[in-house]
Amino acid sequence: MKRYVLIVAGGKGLRMGHDLPKQFIPLAGKPVLMHTLECFYRWDESADLILVLPEEHQSYWKMLCRELNCPVPHSIASGGDTRFQSVKNGLSFVNQPGYIAVHDGVRPFVSQKVINECFDKVTEYGAVIPVVPLVDSIREKETDGESRPADRSKFVAVQTPQVFDSRILLDAYRQVYDTAFTDDASVVEAAGHTIYTVAGNVENIKITTPFDLLIAEALLCNPN
Amino acid sequence: MKRYVLIVAGGKGLRMGHDLPKQFIPLAGKPVLMHTLECFYRWDESADLILVLPEEHQSYWKMLCRELNCPVPHSIASGGDTRFQSVKNGLSFVNQPGYIAVHDGVRPFVSQKVINECFDKVTEYGAVIPVVPLVDSIREKETDGESRPADRSKFVAVQTPQVFDSRILLDAYRQVYDTAFTDDASVVEAAGHTIYTVAGNVENIKITTPFDLLIAEALLCNPN
Repeated sequence: MKRYVLIVAGGKGLRMGHDLPKQFIPLAGKPVLMHTLECFYRWDESADLILVLPEEHQSYWKMLCRELNCPVPHSIASGGDTRFQSVKNGLSFVNQPGYIAVHDGVRPFVSQKVINECFDKVTEYGAVIPVVPLVDSIREKETDGESRPADRSKFVAVQTPQVFDSRILLDAYRQVYDTAFTDDASVVEAAGHTIYTVAGNVENIKITTPFDLLIAEALLCNPN
Repeated sequence: MKRYVLIVAGGKGLRMGHDLPKQFIPLAGKPVLMHTLECFYRWDESADLILVLPEEHQSYWKMLCRELNCPVPHSIASGGDTRFQSVKNGLSFVNQPGYIAVHDGVRPFVSQKVINECFDKVTEYGAVIPVVPLVDSIREKETDGESRPADRSKFVAVQTPQVFDSRILLDAYRQVYDTAFTDDASVVEAAGHTIYTVAGNVENIKITTPFDLLIAEALLCNPN
């Protein structure tokens, strides 16, 4: 079966405090996004990589790829106003049945093991996402500004890649957009499918703040 | 009013994969725990620092303090079988009314601003804890092994120092131990008090895994 990887890099990077959108910030001489692409290319050179980028960033990205001799062949789809629309645009590049991973462009540290595990389990379950335990105690906020303890062991933090049978994902993305769609799993669930979870790797952070960037630099200097 | 800081370092460090309990692991030439003590000493040299350590670690700790010329005066209380008992043992060193911060020994990166904010607000509210937003999407696990999306904006992650009016904290620790006591806030709440939350700093991580240690080293090399 064909394997697709949709890498979503729609962010305008407002949270980072840089002018540069976060996916372009250099890490060890290469944009975060290029590390992410290379990670999936290392995993399977024959997978179809589809990068979803806002139109206004595409020429800049292509220039970076030329200058840095990006070795990873990939298609480019245009980002939309919402993540939902961005993924939908990327899905228009899927032209035969298979399995589709949807991955955040700013998560370059997903392990090969986790990618393999997701693609392994998707053949049986149709919809697989990596999750990790919560580290800190949590509290639930109440409407009056107060809060009460919640049991962190009942919750998990959700990462990407979220991997789906292409029929399930394409079907789910035919729904009308709902603000409750926070990730692809929630879109697929709203269409009536059950999500299977596998253990993620804690290094697979989403780089969205200067603190995350510091962690990313440390990870690159200390690969496992 | 007198200010106390109870630094709880009861951990045997089983999660870290080192033989050395995590609070003793060296960071830039000093044990994690010494960084934590120095952080509170920098904040207020006149505060009473009480370190809670398992008895079997105390002679090793004292040797480290001598060898490294630890500049921070502190008392040492013995750890108990539970965190509840450890804090209770530390509280026996509190001998006059005041405010008491309870802090994890393996959180050396709490900012001075957050400590100040907690001690500032405690005079009005009696019980103050720092919290930070959750970064990743979360899911709630269900009994059948499945899970459903939860709204991460309704939750916060809880850090330390947790700061209390000494009367409130001493009173709360007269309760019988309950396994639902996950932190000091939960003990104080069970005694009928309301918890006030302030914004924590994201760097204030709890060092419990080799990945956390990597982040810690990066933070020490790149102080704000």
